[in-house]
Amino acid sequence: MSRRAPDTDYVKNMSDVLAGPTREEAHALSRQRPYAKEDRLTEDLSALGTARRRFLTGVAAAGGAMAAGALGMSAAKADALKVPDWSKTMGRPIDARAYGMPSRYEKHVTRNRTDVFVNKQNFSDWSMTPLQHQHGIVTPNGLIYERHHAGTADIDPAQHRLVIHGMVKRPLVFTMDALMRYPSVSKFYFLECSGNGLTDWLAVKSKTVQQTHGLLSCSQWTGIPVSWLLDEAGIDPKGKWILFEGADGSAHGRSIPVEKAMGDTMIVFGSGGEALRPENGYPLRAFMPGWEGNVSVKWLRRIKVSDKPWHLRSETARYTDPMPEGKWRQFSMEMECKSVITNPSGGMSLKGPGFHEIRGFAWSGRGTIRAVDVTTDGGKSWRTADLEEPVMEKCLTRFRYRWNWDGGPTKIASRAVDNTGYVQPTVADLAKTRAIVGFVQHHNGIFPWSVNEKGEVDNAIA
Amino acid sequence: MSRRAPDTDYVKNMSDVLAGPTREEAHALSRQRPYAKEDRLTEDLSALGTARRRFLTGVAAAGGAMAAGALGMSAAKADALKVPDWSKTMGRPIDARAYGMPSRYEKHVTRNRTDVFVNKQNFSDWSMTPLQHQHGIVTPNGLIYERHHAGTADIDPAQHRLVIHGMVKRPLVFTMDALMRYPSVSKFYFLECSGNGLTDWLAVKSKTVQQTHGLLSCSQWTGIPVSWLLDEAGIDPKGKWILFEGADGSAHGRSIPVEKAMGDTMIVFGSGGEALRPENGYPLRAFMPGWEGNVSVKWLRRIKVSDKPWHLRSETARYTDPMPEGKWRQFSMEMECKSVITNPSGGMSLKGPGFHEIRGFAWSGRGTIRAVDVTTDGGKSWRTADLEEPVMEKCLTRFRYRWNWDGGPTKIASRAVDNTGYVQPTVADLAKTRAIVGFVQHHNGIFPWSVNEKGEVDNAIA
Repeated sequence: MSRRAPDTDYVKNMSDVLAGPTREEAHALSRQRPYAKEDRLTEDLSALGTARRRFLTGVAAAGGAMAAGALGMSAAKADALKVPDWSKTMGRPIDARAYGMPSRYEKHVTRNRTDVFVNKQNFSDWSMTPLQHQHGIVTPNGLIYERHHAGTADIDPAQHRLVIHGMVKRPLVFTMDALMRYPSVSKFYFLECSGNGLTDWLAVKSKTVQQTHGLLSCSQWTGIPVSWLLDEAGIDPKGKWILFEGADGSAHGRSIPVEKAMGDTMIVFGSGGEALRPENGYPLRAFMPGWEGNVSVKWLRRIKVSDKPWHLRSETARYTDPMPEGKWRQFSMEMECKSVITNPSGGMSLKGPGFHEIRGFAWSGRGTIRAVDVTTDGGKSWRTADLEEPVMEKCLTRFRYRWNWDGGPTKIASRAVDNTGYVQPTVADLAKTRAIVGFVQHHNGIFPWSVNEKGEVDNAIA
Repeated sequence: MSRRAPDTDYVKNMSDVLAGPTREEAHALSRQRPYAKEDRLTEDLSALGTARRRFLTGVAAAGGAMAAGALGMSAAKADALKVPDWSKTMGRPIDARAYGMPSRYEKHVTRNRTDVFVNKQNFSDWSMTPLQHQHGIVTPNGLIYERHHAGTADIDPAQHRLVIHGMVKRPLVFTMDALMRYPSVSKFYFLECSGNGLTDWLAVKSKTVQQTHGLLSCSQWTGIPVSWLLDEAGIDPKGKWILFEGADGSAHGRSIPVEKAMGDTMIVFGSGGEALRPENGYPLRAFMPGWEGNVSVKWLRRIKVSDKPWHLRSETARYTDPMPEGKWRQFSMEMECKSVITNPSGGMSLKGPGFHEIRGFAWSGRGTIRAVDVTTDGGKSWRTADLEEPVMEKCLTRFRYRWNWDGGPTKIASRAVDNTGYVQPTVADLAKTRAIVGFVQHHNGIFPWSVNEKGEVDNAIA
């Protein structure tokens, strides 16, 4: 299968990273179809050999008739199998009205404000999603990453208003009740900060995938296409840019081309099945699928139509990309195709050679993920990973790859291809068209983890 | 389109509820394709007329050049649009490590233990999901319904063991670490208690959809197909039933046919992107897609293979269906096709005649939802609702229907059809083949809400 090098400014020629087996060869080697009998895992797991014996606490090879005893296990295993205390007592009763919380044994699974890099003030701040602990594609609302420029506003929805004005036939103001009466739509989309990983490529070397890639989350977002409201207001034909501005203390705003606003942009009041959380814009935010997170303005207060962009602080000082020859690129809002291995990832430790499932996420702001390749030999060869359904547009896609680790030191990495044919670039390729200086926005380079002889996994960015 | 009456024991002939327009006629009347220009909402919303003027707080019809003032609104509207206090202050900063919670303005959105019906003890208890507040199809983990027979066990995952034994070649014991090393899968599935609504059809008349249908939730579940582990253990050819037993104080267990266990049954450690919550089986539960919730045994401790079912208390006293002539049906574990309108639903109030979006959920334990019909005239005519993508197997599907309420009293209801051709039955049809006495398990009848002249919505079960 040929891969088209798409018409972007920073992917030139990917032929050098396409060494190794063809896609079809890789597919034949690694493809699994769960539940299809001929492909069932038995075979792979038999190959585990010593690894399996190590990771199972105990296996009683008592063939034929079971001996006496509730569990039919040998006496040597009895201790491990004794009835635990929690099976002998009444558990916690149900509260009359409650909102449930995670187990006390999961207290390590939180958003983290910082790890290696230390943000010394908390006015313009962020926290990151623990991707290494995320199952499936949905980020729990309590773990969706945070980013703000003046803290989380505490907004009473009964007092909140959304205004549409500027170059429109009829300015409008909406209460939350009014907006909730509109038909709504619910869509699964990823959300990623343009600066995801920016602390990592030059400034510091973070330990965990939470720090290298955790300005990334995914949810089902519920709201109203903004185009419906803008159609009601009636955009002046000269209106080309639309301001979205927040009600937070920083009045964070962005200028958006009218085409995006009239396309798949939504105003959103729900995520993950319930109302938006305060730190994610309660009661209302913009949502621009596939674009950098900061344009999905939170605590949305007004939408204003103009014939030109505003050149706000977030469009000059922040959220711009340094280019060669000292120029800076503005309004580069689409998030290019990207992927990262979350398991195993930095800070984890492989418990011995043998079978390990490599898992991760792939996503593209331009559409759907077509394929993900994985290397387990530092880039010498690449194999096709399995993509887990549903594979949705502008949404996290989970990939899985079965790896038999030989116990030697190596590097692992993933690279994604989207349905436009765009291939996630190497860092070297990225550097050919961009200036990799300071804090790097829109860095979607292939990200490697190293594994040493002890199984310890570490950030392997050169 | 003809609808096959499937080979089940309680749907005989649905021709009586199929009066009204054909599916094609209904489709032509109500179909919307969000984002497709020719179908955009402008037309529908223009038709709102007075309703829109009522639900918008204010509309300043200032055509042409905007007057001075940041918002360009008339002075009469200025008060409503003044800059709120939360825009003039610094908001809440980010905690170093935190698990986020809903806004303080959403404290009414909780699981409820009871509403009208009062369970006087808390040993065998349940709480219900606030479906009327759920956006999209994913139930937040903090709102997934609860059901237990001896409270929520507080289990240390480092001490927890899963045993597979009985009629197998090789009994096995697994630690949680061992299970987490297997390849895993993540699937979106609904979870419904067989007794969902049982308090409602005869005993009491609940007010809200949380009480009538709230033993229903939906999540993306992550775990391992049990077949992989049973293949490793090696089931004796005479093994036909498999016990799944919990580690809670009640040692809740169920006997499962080997075909289901070797089919799509999973053992699950994740839901909604993170570890299972304690009340939903942390650290491990069974998950049997499309089957009644209680077979998806929580706090899973052992799996035992036998040549016959156990006839446990949950298979004789509980979870059986009264049939005509005093007989009781056992092992009726599949959840038949069902739907319910969640908006508007009991306890809500329509704010005047005009446009209202009717929203709800449809689901089937046998496959995917093919169609949902909505009546807004008490069953005289039915119209096809829109199904929102993704429509997934054994998963909640959201339907939407645009209704112009004329202000008169009426009844509204939904009925679902699944991909086997099964049509959700009327209560009268259900009563033809089942004995509707006492607490009714597996009641999937069409559920009506009444709307009076004031717009008040109420439970309309006869």
